[in-house]
Amino acid sequence: MTLPAHGPVLALTTGEPAGIGPELTLLLAAGKALSARVVAVGDPQLLAERAAMIERPVELLELAPGEPVPPPRAGLLPVWPVALREPSLPGRLATANAGYVLETLDVAVRACLAGHAGGMVTAPLHKGVVLDAGHAGFTGHTEYLRDACGVDEVVMLLATGSALHAREAGWRGNAALRVALATTHLPLREVADAITEARLERILRILHADLQRWFGVARPRIAVCGLNPHAGEGGHLGREELDVIIPCLERLREDGLLLDGPLPADTLFTPRHLAEVDAVLAMYHDQGLPVLKYAGFGRAANITLGLPLVRTSVDHGTALDLAGRGIADPGSLCVAVELAADMAHRGSMVSSS
Amino acid sequence: MTLPAHGPVLALTTGEPAGIGPELTLLLAAGKALSARVVAVGDPQLLAERAAMIERPVELLELAPGEPVPPPRAGLLPVWPVALREPSLPGRLATANAGYVLETLDVAVRACLAGHAGGMVTAPLHKGVVLDAGHAGFTGHTEYLRDACGVDEVVMLLATGSALHAREAGWRGNAALRVALATTHLPLREVADAITEARLERILRILHADLQRWFGVARPRIAVCGLNPHAGEGGHLGREELDVIIPCLERLREDGLLLDGPLPADTLFTPRHLAEVDAVLAMYHDQGLPVLKYAGFGRAANITLGLPLVRTSVDHGTALDLAGRGIADPGSLCVAVELAADMAHRGSMVSSS
Repeated sequence: MTLPAHGPVLALTTGEPAGIGPELTLLLAAGKALSARVVAVGDPQLLAERAAMIERPVELLELAPGEPVPPPRAGLLPVWPVALREPSLPGRLATANAGYVLETLDVAVRACLAGHAGGMVTAPLHKGVVLDAGHAGFTGHTEYLRDACGVDEVVMLLATGSALHAREAGWRGNAALRVALATTHLPLREVADAITEARLERILRILHADLQRWFGVARPRIAVCGLNPHAGEGGHLGREELDVIIPCLERLREDGLLLDGPLPADTLFTPRHLAEVDAVLAMYHDQGLPVLKYAGFGRAANITLGLPLVRTSVDHGTALDLAGRGIADPGSLCVAVELAADMAHRGSMVSSS
Repeated sequence: MTLPAHGPVLALTTGEPAGIGPELTLLLAAGKALSARVVAVGDPQLLAERAAMIERPVELLELAPGEPVPPPRAGLLPVWPVALREPSLPGRLATANAGYVLETLDVAVRACLAGHAGGMVTAPLHKGVVLDAGHAGFTGHTEYLRDACGVDEVVMLLATGSALHAREAGWRGNAALRVALATTHLPLREVADAITEARLERILRILHADLQRWFGVARPRIAVCGLNPHAGEGGHLGREELDVIIPCLERLREDGLLLDGPLPADTLFTPRHLAEVDAVLAMYHDQGLPVLKYAGFGRAANITLGLPLVRTSVDHGTALDLAGRGIADPGSLCVAVELAADMAHRGSMVSSS
């Protein structure tokens, strides 16, 4: 794979048509020129209607995957067309269009695997409407992509945009705060039992490998949170650190991974510690994400590691109540595109070297 | 009680003598004049030795509780003497001095209850050495003070200094980020069962009343975190919000409390939401404190609510490895003094009005 001129091609799935995904895509395209050749995956007619609705004239250019994508230009939006099953109005969910949403993902995955795109960025979908449409067991983008790519385990990583933190705190690496999760959407009372040595090992190996592959960090240093407050305080506040986490980290250190911890989460998430590491592994959702969202000020994005392709996503939902009004904030989508472009660029350097 | 001239008297217990508490007290006294008349509670000889060791000449003025305390002046440190049981060296714990540490707390509590001090500030003690000295069941300052004051329940509140956040984010009230905890030092797997309606109600009533009494907030607005990720997502990620938290909040709202939530922790801890509220109630330690510590940049302090007196504390430990070197950062102690002075001032306004 040769390095693309004008940045990598990124497939941007426009998500739930009744939500803010289509207009965020248009706001992005109408703004300043991007560092990647973003191609929307969705219905061109829908995009044209929404552009008129929010009064953002954007030139749509219909292409097929594999056709050359022109350099980025403000006001131009290339589109790989996928047809809506029925017309969509802002705020009105329609089960008929659930299949459309999933088809946009399939198109993007195929394009990435075929080398027509260097990565994919996803606008939000609506889980409930996909379930209502009969796709039982659907739990979200991440698991759908995992299955579509035929891998067993993926890792959810949240990251802030680099510019923000480079300015504020002088982080290492490409200057973003990155927080990966050992467990994601579990009731709190199920978390402790879900932290097994086997799971931690899989997650840490993926995180280590993908920091190298997609983020260009030769020797990633990862800070690992304890499960319990004060990382268990030597067993006084829980034994999972002694029984599970420490043995796992010791084994992985023997394989050369650079791992700090387990550390108390409220000590670890301070600028002094964060400046030393390339990523943090939190044991569960609310241990890691509040800091990330606080630090990110609405400019954070979600990254799926462990896939054979680059995938980033906004960190918010469909916001049905805002849809069609042109007032939604494309900040997270900008960060998701910026991160995907950077990852695709670094990944292509690795595979061509 | 009349308003004190030159700020309230604050009893500052100097904590574990082998740790950094004594020298932090000296660094504080050597710095700029404070907004309160801080009186150290500890051994004058120890303080004189440490002042020489770290080369900070500080004039010690021995007083008895109830004697007039002079106005604050840089370089002057009034002391209420408590005698060490044996000489103390930096970094060397001695069980003989555990009784000394507890006596400093007793002196400070009595002074507050007798009206000789408007509040107390505690430097760190070392839990292990108190336990080793035979005080079985000792779990820390907070519970010791609870029992010494004869109350059933206290609430741990962490707060950042006001100046930092006033500058950055335009918070409401006195411009600090305040995070209270519904549970504190529990293994994670015990948290869900510890969140009962009765406990939440007690904690929220204390938080509400003390925001009024000590922080001068007439109508406190409190944001309450869910227990589960996404605050349970309507029961899909845990039922505690539906079964416990929501019913509790509804009942308290009928009594006039202004309560937002339960809200997802990673949504709540964003500047937009925080600007609207006077305090956050997190359900457990690592849900609330990482953000607080991140935001506070080492300038946060710990406050015990529910006591009949003002008590603040540093948010760090004894740092035995740093003791005697004069390099420990008094930032948290400064914030603890600043907050206690402010609370004592507001509390005295309430009781005199």
